[in-house]
Amino acid sequence: MNYSELWLDHASAKTDADFCGTVAWNNDCARVKNAVGELKTALTAMTGRVPELIRSANYEGRGIFLCAEGEGEAFEIFRRGETLVIKGGSAGVLYGAFALIRGLVCGDKELCTKQSPSKPLRMLDHWDNADGSVERGYSGNSFFFRDGELLVNERTVTYARLLASVGINAAAINNVNVKGPATRLITEEYYGRLREMSEIFDGYGIKLFLSLNYAAPMELGGLDSADPLDERVAAWWNARMKETFEALPKLGGFVVKADSEGRPGPFTYGRTHADGANMLARAVRPYGGKIIWRCFVYNCQQDWRDLKTDRARACCDNFEPLDGMFDDNVILQIKNGPVDFQVREPVSPLFGRLKRTNCMAEFQIAQEYTGQQRHVCYLIDWFRQVLDTRMYTGAEKDTVGDIVCGVTAVSNTGDDFNWTGHDLAGANLYGFGRLAWDTSLSAERIAREWICMYYGRDEELSDTVCDILMRSWPVYEKYNAPLGIGWMCTPGYHYGPDPDGYEYSRWGTYHKATHETIGLDRTPSGTGMTEQYNEPLRSVYADRDKCPDELKLFFHKLPYTFRLKSGKTVIQHIYDTHFEGAEEAAEFVELWKKLKDRMDAGRYERVLARLVEQSLSAAEWRDVINSYFWRKTMIPDEKGRELY
Amino acid sequence: MNYSELWLDHASAKTDADFCGTVAWNNDCARVKNAVGELKTALTAMTGRVPELIRSANYEGRGIFLCAEGEGEAFEIFRRGETLVIKGGSAGVLYGAFALIRGLVCGDKELCTKQSPSKPLRMLDHWDNADGSVERGYSGNSFFFRDGELLVNERTVTYARLLASVGINAAAINNVNVKGPATRLITEEYYGRLREMSEIFDGYGIKLFLSLNYAAPMELGGLDSADPLDERVAAWWNARMKETFEALPKLGGFVVKADSEGRPGPFTYGRTHADGANMLARAVRPYGGKIIWRCFVYNCQQDWRDLKTDRARACCDNFEPLDGMFDDNVILQIKNGPVDFQVREPVSPLFGRLKRTNCMAEFQIAQEYTGQQRHVCYLIDWFRQVLDTRMYTGAEKDTVGDIVCGVTAVSNTGDDFNWTGHDLAGANLYGFGRLAWDTSLSAERIAREWICMYYGRDEELSDTVCDILMRSWPVYEKYNAPLGIGWMCTPGYHYGPDPDGYEYSRWGTYHKATHETIGLDRTPSGTGMTEQYNEPLRSVYADRDKCPDELKLFFHKLPYTFRLKSGKTVIQHIYDTHFEGAEEAAEFVELWKKLKDRMDAGRYERVLARLVEQSLSAAEWRDVINSYFWRKTMIPDEKGRELY
Repeated sequence: MNYSELWLDHASAKTDADFCGTVAWNNDCARVKNAVGELKTALTAMTGRVPELIRSANYEGRGIFLCAEGEGEAFEIFRRGETLVIKGGSAGVLYGAFALIRGLVCGDKELCTKQSPSKPLRMLDHWDNADGSVERGYSGNSFFFRDGELLVNERTVTYARLLASVGINAAAINNVNVKGPATRLITEEYYGRLREMSEIFDGYGIKLFLSLNYAAPMELGGLDSADPLDERVAAWWNARMKETFEALPKLGGFVVKADSEGRPGPFTYGRTHADGANMLARAVRPYGGKIIWRCFVYNCQQDWRDLKTDRARACCDNFEPLDGMFDDNVILQIKNGPVDFQVREPVSPLFGRLKRTNCMAEFQIAQEYTGQQRHVCYLIDWFRQVLDTRMYTGAEKDTVGDIVCGVTAVSNTGDDFNWTGHDLAGANLYGFGRLAWDTSLSAERIAREWICMYYGRDEELSDTVCDILMRSWPVYEKYNAPLGIGWMCTPGYHYGPDPDGYEYSRWGTYHKATHETIGLDRTPSGTGMTEQYNEPLRSVYADRDKCPDELKLFFHKLPYTFRLKSGKTVIQHIYDTHFEGAEEAAEFVELWKKLKDRMDAGRYERVLARLVEQSLSAAEWRDVINSYFWRKTMIPDEKGRELY
Repeated sequence: MNYSELWLDHASAKTDADFCGTVAWNNDCARVKNAVGELKTALTAMTGRVPELIRSANYEGRGIFLCAEGEGEAFEIFRRGETLVIKGGSAGVLYGAFALIRGLVCGDKELCTKQSPSKPLRMLDHWDNADGSVERGYSGNSFFFRDGELLVNERTVTYARLLASVGINAAAINNVNVKGPATRLITEEYYGRLREMSEIFDGYGIKLFLSLNYAAPMELGGLDSADPLDERVAAWWNARMKETFEALPKLGGFVVKADSEGRPGPFTYGRTHADGANMLARAVRPYGGKIIWRCFVYNCQQDWRDLKTDRARACCDNFEPLDGMFDDNVILQIKNGPVDFQVREPVSPLFGRLKRTNCMAEFQIAQEYTGQQRHVCYLIDWFRQVLDTRMYTGAEKDTVGDIVCGVTAVSNTGDDFNWTGHDLAGANLYGFGRLAWDTSLSAERIAREWICMYYGRDEELSDTVCDILMRSWPVYEKYNAPLGIGWMCTPGYHYGPDPDGYEYSRWGTYHKATHETIGLDRTPSGTGMTEQYNEPLRSVYADRDKCPDELKLFFHKLPYTFRLKSGKTVIQHIYDTHFEGAEEAAEFVELWKKLKDRMDAGRYERVLARLVEQSLSAAEWRDVINSYFWRKTMIPDEKGRELY
């Protein structure tokens, strides 16, 4: 096997719980049988004995009884005499089985629990191309595609198990930039393998999604248009979707990136995104399908000289006027921030502006801008903060987490042995699923769980790894672009520092640093983007003093001598954080070295090598960013440290 | 035919000279027959009648008589009664025939002339890869290679004719970065086609050269070393060269890039470049072969924080100590400047430091850093200035032109219809050959010749095109990196502005711009690179006042308020030149439009499209460079023009 089972490998876990000798179940559907299988494997590993397996309508003996009714996701684990009952829908029982295993592995004192998911849609988006490459992939190649072929094999099953074990219930397997053979995923050419895959997925409670090429009526259908209001186009989609859903009854629906970064879309025909999304939504409605429509739409041919256009406004400018116009099987997929997965951004204001539209939050665990899985950057606390952010919509429950009907993440997986390039990036894959299932979980709680599941029960190890994980996002932020300004990375590649790399380009991502000031004025005296927020966020962000320090330069153009809430000037903050960040990154290496004898050599060496690279890269970030500002401002570091 | 004959297409030229009815010759060698063929073709086109062809030991009638003896390159054209005699060695007669054609096409009153080349070696270096790509190629793909195969066809003949017509007598056809199949050019696999090619070349007086992979003894020979002092290695080369020259008796020799930018070389074994070059030289000596050894050796893993290391020193530091240690069939190939083909550099100091070593000057007509053949940049005046630069070696004749035994240029050709991407880049191909043949020719004289040969005899057109060509290099310099500092271009790609693109990288190419100063101190108070020049250059360059303005920032770290000889401050010079340069580039478009009816539509439109692109690109350069310095210095433009 050329891949790890990650947190499903329980070889080192032990339990002596009294119910481990028997697993009974009342329902032969695939999900319940998969739950039985998981328990059998895990209990065998943890007790050294294969449990007795009993099919029973109502088992009452010593042991575990999986009691499934319907297909729902909620579950309850409770004791009834000598029986530990896991009760729920078929998906719920599967989740319950994984919850029980997790409890046993982690040595939880209390195994009884009653859970239902925070959000109905918990998804991963893969940016895998049909040729086997992965856009923004940092973990090898695709395990879904190779040379145009769809792969369905044992790894597909392990993938589904990993997702189900943390509660993910949907996965879009191909890149939203749909090109080449991927356009033909909705044709007979791929139905056979897709059906196999969708059935494997369904057995683990996962809906298969595909990304669509909006221009498919032209590329596949031979039409001369993809105009959503052209009847021929709608008819083409209707026929195509009928054929596709008949071949793939377990299909969940489609993800669409339209009119964005060169992708075709309804704008080409003077139509709105609602026109475009609804046409597709109507074609998939008869089959219960959903259309997930990405809101990542902006002018990517901006003139850097133009101070009026503000990319951060684009999402609201484009979609707020369409509120209420989308069919109810359309879900708008909104990136967490208004720009693009930077290490720090404010929450997208659009979450606060859609009152009559389904929407979901899109995160990125592929660490495109956060160290590309060569740096450790545990993102769960950040996602938790986003979900907890109040949008002040007037509703009683008004956090992002309350508003959305689902969450998705651009996946960080590939065909590397450890799935995620960096072993510690596994915590993001695990953690995203866990947080999506239960948005009330703390990032630390999730980290501790993952550590225990992946490295085993070892308190000292847990403390150290948890310390590294929990500090990793703040540390990454410290040595990167300061105070929410973002984008000081190598253009295109997005790894390593290049302070002016995006400054004179067409992407709308500028910091405008001069000798005296830095930052963009997004208040009403500037681009007015702060007006897109509801009060009191609007006033807080627009006020240079009230605006949180970490977002100061996102919203304000400030002199380097401006004093932050922290009491430091902007420039001294830059110097201090960069020295600190690089120092902490170096410290991670030393912390890790203490764990040498606490895990196998492979796990130890893989992470060590990446932490060493990170510490060198962090020093480079420190020196480039600090020197950039030193040369520009000529304001010396108060502590007299070396600048170049 | 999917390629143009460029200046060999005489369809529109006319002559009524009295000798055009007959071409006689005294020698049936390939070169003389090729000369006869050129005259026949040209005269037929220009007179409308096919000349009579007469083989004669000593023709004395009305007509042209090619009188060849030996193989030399010198020739004389003189009248003897009714006969116009072209007398010389076989190569000389060929050059004489081309000179006569040129005189007729241009309508020269005086056709009689006596010429010998300024330099014995006049070469082109092609950076063509075996797969058909061209490194730094801006004119399509290779016409020498496709998918590992060597191409020998009609285009090969036209290529040889073009080179011979301007006096080029050597061509290295493969990239100095020798990889993949190109390593096997010195094996039987390629001998057949190479022999064909070398014989075609020889018929036009051109020696075929190949670039060698220094690691060939390991990659081809299966040895575990390429140590030049290892007898097995030398024996391997001796045997390989014997076989190669026996198969390819017309081969001129080899070009070698060793120990540079990741290429293998003698340093790997603690040997010197003399050890490496001499080993190869001894292997090719029995066959009259030459080893052309590139001096482009420097540390390309430099730490940008390190102020002591100076890439500009590297060439002298590496090669001056080896003076006198190279065998006499080794030629050191020295780039014109100490860094790398920037739009402005001082002359390489190494030209002044080698007293007992053969050397040649390497230029680049591939416009890697000078607009990539999308901008017009006629480089011949620049090359002429380099060749005319006195190096003060103590010898009576001490210019670069005097010192070198040859000149070469990285070629700007590819398989585009017009060979050079930009039609006007044809002037660099033509001009480099003409200048190499006669280093006393002025750039304007050469431009006028080329214009007449390519566009026909049209005075107004000639004035306009010559104006554009002659201003093009100064204009390009104006809107690029200022005052000799170089490198403010997109990393890797080298097109378009990126002021800090190379500032924090490993390439040793920095400008060190701060709020107060810019430039490198290369005087004795800095890296001491000026010490590598002989007096008085040394003192002139080291003195910030005496140093020529155009090289100020190459040699000096100066405040932006420093006043240049021109009377302008550094910053105002930057602003002014960038506004001027962009304005002039825009003016080129208007000038060109006036020529619409003076040439065929293809020639007109091709250049127009590129000039339009250039004018947009020049405006981008202007705004990015000016805004970069404005933001950094906050010194306003005296003329109040818009900065961003």
